[in-house]
Amino acid sequence: MTIPQAQNDDERARIALVAEKHAQARELLRRFDLDCWLTFTREGSDPLLPFVTGAEYLVGTSALMIFADGPSVAIVADYDRGQVDGVFDLVHAYGLDWREPFRDVLTDRAPGRIAINTSRDDHGIDGLTHGLWLLLRDALEPLGMTDRLVSAEEVAGRVRALKTPAEVERIRRSCDITVRIFDDLTGMLRPGLTETDVHAILVERMQAHEVGPAWEASYCPSVTTSRGVGGHTAPGLVAIEPGDALRVDFGVRHEGYCSDLQRTWYFPSATDPRPPAAIARPFEAVRDGIALAAELLAPGMSGVEVDSPVRSLLAERGFTFTHALGHQLGRLCHDGGMVLGPDNARYRDRSRGTVEAGMVFTLEPCVGPIGLEEDVLVTDRGVEFLVPPQRELIIVS
Amino acid sequence: MTIPQAQNDDERARIALVAEKHAQARELLRRFDLDCWLTFTREGSDPLLPFVTGAEYLVGTSALMIFADGPSVAIVADYDRGQVDGVFDLVHAYGLDWREPFRDVLTDRAPGRIAINTSRDDHGIDGLTHGLWLLLRDALEPLGMTDRLVSAEEVAGRVRALKTPAEVERIRRSCDITVRIFDDLTGMLRPGLTETDVHAILVERMQAHEVGPAWEASYCPSVTTSRGVGGHTAPGLVAIEPGDALRVDFGVRHEGYCSDLQRTWYFPSATDPRPPAAIARPFEAVRDGIALAAELLAPGMSGVEVDSPVRSLLAERGFTFTHALGHQLGRLCHDGGMVLGPDNARYRDRSRGTVEAGMVFTLEPCVGPIGLEEDVLVTDRGVEFLVPPQRELIIVS
Repeated sequence: MTIPQAQNDDERARIALVAEKHAQARELLRRFDLDCWLTFTREGSDPLLPFVTGAEYLVGTSALMIFADGPSVAIVADYDRGQVDGVFDLVHAYGLDWREPFRDVLTDRAPGRIAINTSRDDHGIDGLTHGLWLLLRDALEPLGMTDRLVSAEEVAGRVRALKTPAEVERIRRSCDITVRIFDDLTGMLRPGLTETDVHAILVERMQAHEVGPAWEASYCPSVTTSRGVGGHTAPGLVAIEPGDALRVDFGVRHEGYCSDLQRTWYFPSATDPRPPAAIARPFEAVRDGIALAAELLAPGMSGVEVDSPVRSLLAERGFTFTHALGHQLGRLCHDGGMVLGPDNARYRDRSRGTVEAGMVFTLEPCVGPIGLEEDVLVTDRGVEFLVPPQRELIIVS
Repeated sequence: MTIPQAQNDDERARIALVAEKHAQARELLRRFDLDCWLTFTREGSDPLLPFVTGAEYLVGTSALMIFADGPSVAIVADYDRGQVDGVFDLVHAYGLDWREPFRDVLTDRAPGRIAINTSRDDHGIDGLTHGLWLLLRDALEPLGMTDRLVSAEEVAGRVRALKTPAEVERIRRSCDITVRIFDDLTGMLRPGLTETDVHAILVERMQAHEVGPAWEASYCPSVTTSRGVGGHTAPGLVAIEPGDALRVDFGVRHEGYCSDLQRTWYFPSATDPRPPAAIARPFEAVRDGIALAAELLAPGMSGVEVDSPVRSLLAERGFTFTHALGHQLGRLCHDGGMVLGPDNARYRDRSRGTVEAGMVFTLEPCVGPIGLEEDVLVTDRGVEFLVPPQRELIIVS
């Protein structure tokens, strides 16, 4: 069968991306003294699957093993073989049962510490279901290996969080598309449009640009006028009037990677072109908060150490935000366990993590009618904005 | 905020559907002597979420509890509140931590047996991750309740498998749309088109009918000419020639529910309008196999008891299929644990289950170039085809 050229290129890009992630995983296994990273999954149950195989769905029960040393091994149902060929060194395609090849590989390779995808805090690496964990334990019991299972957090968390250059380029492309869609929107905005109208424009623009939403479609985009209700709600029939601000929280998913940006527009009143203090002051506070966050954000900082001064800056200006300053971004919109957040019961465990080079964060100390959210890459030489940040209200006259 | 009428109707339909499922769950809890069905989830981790809330995604850690007796309770992050209001009797929206209201509810209601979404065999009800199971156990420990956790298989499996009338109507509508798309395709087919061309036609038709694919987009539809390669592979550049059959495996997802149908077309050669034996004979065998399956399929039968005679009928005609005769269908394309399958290592545990009225199955004893797959509802008075089954090859001349 001849494969069309485009498909061939996509396929090559997929295999190259997964090879990068496998190499990264092997290095991390050695660094954390683990022998094998096992992704044990069925019917698309594990959100790490795209990193391990480049695919989002394996139907049958699958054991995908990357070893610190020696060839990687995929045990998959025969009908899933096409998804792992070319990305694993050895592929065992079973007809009836995964257990026999699985036990053979473990007996042969005898890994001392087997890392599995389980985490109390990070949903992005907590893909192993409890039922599969029971099945796995049943299979390891006759081998006397049940005590070798440990959490893969150290490895899987970093495989998800530390972006390779190819991954950063994919996120950047999603950001670029989002900015283009925002520009399209700016040209179409006018007073009288409702939140629902703006929502419909953005949905149509996603189709035109052939991208999907970065999170659940009914909340992406989230569109709010300064007279409408706040945050994470479905858009309503509130019409924009002169003197209003418009806040849009929106991201797209393209080539498997997400953007997550917010922009704010202002519609001047007939009598005064300048925004009132109720809009100008929080805008400046949020913008300055983002600039401060970008200065602080560096490898070695904890999430709290970045969040806290920004929260104080906003508080000094009289504004409060209750959510985290920023979350990681990647294949998921809420990606990677660690957040730039406060030391409270909601965020504590995830705010205490340490920033590393290669992480991509959102910065979004948003308040009331003002939505500014930027996507940044952490490097050893400071923070890089993936697209130019918004510095001024976008005026629609 | 005024809600548009359409959204209001959708919202009402969602709430009505979830109310049906909650009532069903309460009945099942009593039948199986369980006190509470707990769905413990975050970031869309549990495939049962749509049954329990009507939504597909809750961001924060959520404890959704349906009790055999007394009001249902949802503990959710404040920003998720809109997803559970109206469907749970009591909603605790927390600002920082789910643990405190969770412990209060358990102390107050004191359920003896708490059923959780974990299953070795059925991925559709195995939504609790191992990390969340650990978190849950941590929370129950100070209450002395860790030994009260049991698998929700009996309840959750049936909530997924036994369709209410509103659910059957949704599946039927997805089947209707699929048949309309097949009819559209019949009008556009001609020799010279490649598998890729047919794939593109069906993707365009899905957009025109405003529906998504029932399973992973790159394999839905699956298009195979009788000279192409078999099953579950990406469509290629093989062009249809006179004398070929064309097999399409395709389903759509609409209002949250899937169809999964296969149809087979035949392109007569210039010299002979009749299909050759290599196409006619397997077609008749598959068709007759489906008819036999529909006769046998009834409440009380095991999966093996339906699969085995059909497998024998095909074998008598000289044909073999290695997959199961049929799987359940619902919100997932592979829905419900139980299959109509053989008693072998791949299917054993799932083939031994018992058919109940209200289940929806595919029937698909397909072989080689012939894809016939029908969707049927099991009732106490026999099987109902959700759309008319294919009885003859569709001839494209």
